[in-house]
Amino acid sequence: MSDAVSVDARLAGWQVRIEDALRRVLPSPDVEPKRLHAAMRHAALNGGKRIRPLLVYATGHALGVDETSLDDAALAVELIHCYSLVHDDLPAMDDDDLRRGQPTVHIAFDEATAILAGDALQSLAFERLAQAALPDKAKVAMLRELAIASGHAGMCGGQALDIDATGQRIDIDQLERLHAMKTGALLRAAVRLGALAAGAATAQQQVLDAYADALGLAFQVKDDLLDIEGDSVTLGKTAGKDIAQDKATFPALIGVEASRSRLQTLSATMFASLGQLQADASALEALGRRVVQRDR
Amino acid sequence: MSDAVSVDARLAGWQVRIEDALRRVLPSPDVEPKRLHAAMRHAALNGGKRIRPLLVYATGHALGVDETSLDDAALAVELIHCYSLVHDDLPAMDDDDLRRGQPTVHIAFDEATAILAGDALQSLAFERLAQAALPDKAKVAMLRELAIASGHAGMCGGQALDIDATGQRIDIDQLERLHAMKTGALLRAAVRLGALAAGAATAQQQVLDAYADALGLAFQVKDDLLDIEGDSVTLGKTAGKDIAQDKATFPALIGVEASRSRLQTLSATMFASLGQLQADASALEALGRRVVQRDR
Repeated sequence: MSDAVSVDARLAGWQVRIEDALRRVLPSPDVEPKRLHAAMRHAALNGGKRIRPLLVYATGHALGVDETSLDDAALAVELIHCYSLVHDDLPAMDDDDLRRGQPTVHIAFDEATAILAGDALQSLAFERLAQAALPDKAKVAMLRELAIASGHAGMCGGQALDIDATGQRIDIDQLERLHAMKTGALLRAAVRLGALAAGAATAQQQVLDAYADALGLAFQVKDDLLDIEGDSVTLGKTAGKDIAQDKATFPALIGVEASRSRLQTLSATMFASLGQLQADASALEALGRRVVQRDR
Repeated sequence: MSDAVSVDARLAGWQVRIEDALRRVLPSPDVEPKRLHAAMRHAALNGGKRIRPLLVYATGHALGVDETSLDDAALAVELIHCYSLVHDDLPAMDDDDLRRGQPTVHIAFDEATAILAGDALQSLAFERLAQAALPDKAKVAMLRELAIASGHAGMCGGQALDIDATGQRIDIDQLERLHAMKTGALLRAAVRLGALAAGAATAQQQVLDAYADALGLAFQVKDDLLDIEGDSVTLGKTAGKDIAQDKATFPALIGVEASRSRLQTLSATMFASLGQLQADASALEALGRRVVQRDR
């Protein structure tokens, strides 16, 4: 039990650390262009779960990297995630007014500012990663990894597939591919950034990839289940939206029970992979549990 | 005269080179997500002037870097430029239907695809730069330079200032600051990427910065003059739009004659700076002339 407590305390410490880091590196709302800076801060300082930076810290920690060397990588993945939410919420995309109980960026500001704030958050992610306290060789590999995970073969590509799929009949393989790109690629990149910072061996990287892939898919299955089972107040966003928008989801394609069972299998895969890591994977395990058991 | 011909031939060669490189690195429209890939290609393969990649090649060439080592940096600046045009053209921003005589991306495709195509082009820029055939140390410096030039303190910030300024009274200092960020930052970055690829000495970098800053401002003064003096067919976009939108421009603030005279002064600054470079600056000179003398 004391182990579990200390893991929770460590995760809580990293959560405080990333919030502080974000507040520090986001440009000041008192400096021009003030409206853009305020919108960037609104987008990134919004009570997010910070799963991605926690994955960076947890992976790096398991492999013996100090937190200071991981800060910029943790910032970079979270900034990419935050920019993607701002753009996904736009009227031409998911058209969401509410995100974590707060007005989305284009509602709190305006559409042009939301587009620019997202663009500038993406640039800031690469800027931070380029000045991380790590060897140049590791940074170049990390920058490449993050760029590929964010772009047409990763997150942006997955979002495009998602738009294409709305109102269409797609099968479970297509749905998994879509999510492996849309959310999976960046979650995997978070783990890989931690591993690259540590100069992890190939065998360790493969084990971590297996963990990250299972976690990424579990994340999405859980998201789909929450849209059905959750309530809007706890979620901080509109529940039932997937059905209203006729989105392809795991429950819609294979049913609620099979989706729950799939979540358990993915959970088992995560823990089995971590068992092979030959390192202290307690924080990665705790994050896996958090993804599967969360209520928002 | 033979020198002038050979410079033009060299620039024409680089232009072919960057077109080929873009065609090669942009994702195939025959691979999913096809619509996203087609939109990215529409955005980037559109007959642009390619001033920024030409600046990378010209600077690198002046300092003795081979073309193969410069290709990814040239691609990176052009991909950033192309993404910014896609987002600037969106209805919530400048609301342009036409770009270089072709329908803009959100007209040829749709708004959601245009937002995503821009996002993915930005990621691709950093991906390419991360895998350039250069030492890691140079690449990290170049990635940082490009990220800063693209983000809130550079291009995105300048665009935000431009939106804030529309319909407002701003003075000539504010206008220059706006353009130094909106268009100047990326032009300067193009020159700096070439210099960083060469491992240029500080004195050379300063001279090149002075050249790039004058070129960046000249570029914008010329743009403003073309909006008044040019015709829509040659420009490939709607002439007279600045006045219609009540945009702050150099002719609007200081008059057409003073703007023309300013352009000559900036031109003189460019050539004086290059005179101090102690290298073959003929291609950089030719690009400076091209910016000042162009009719589109």
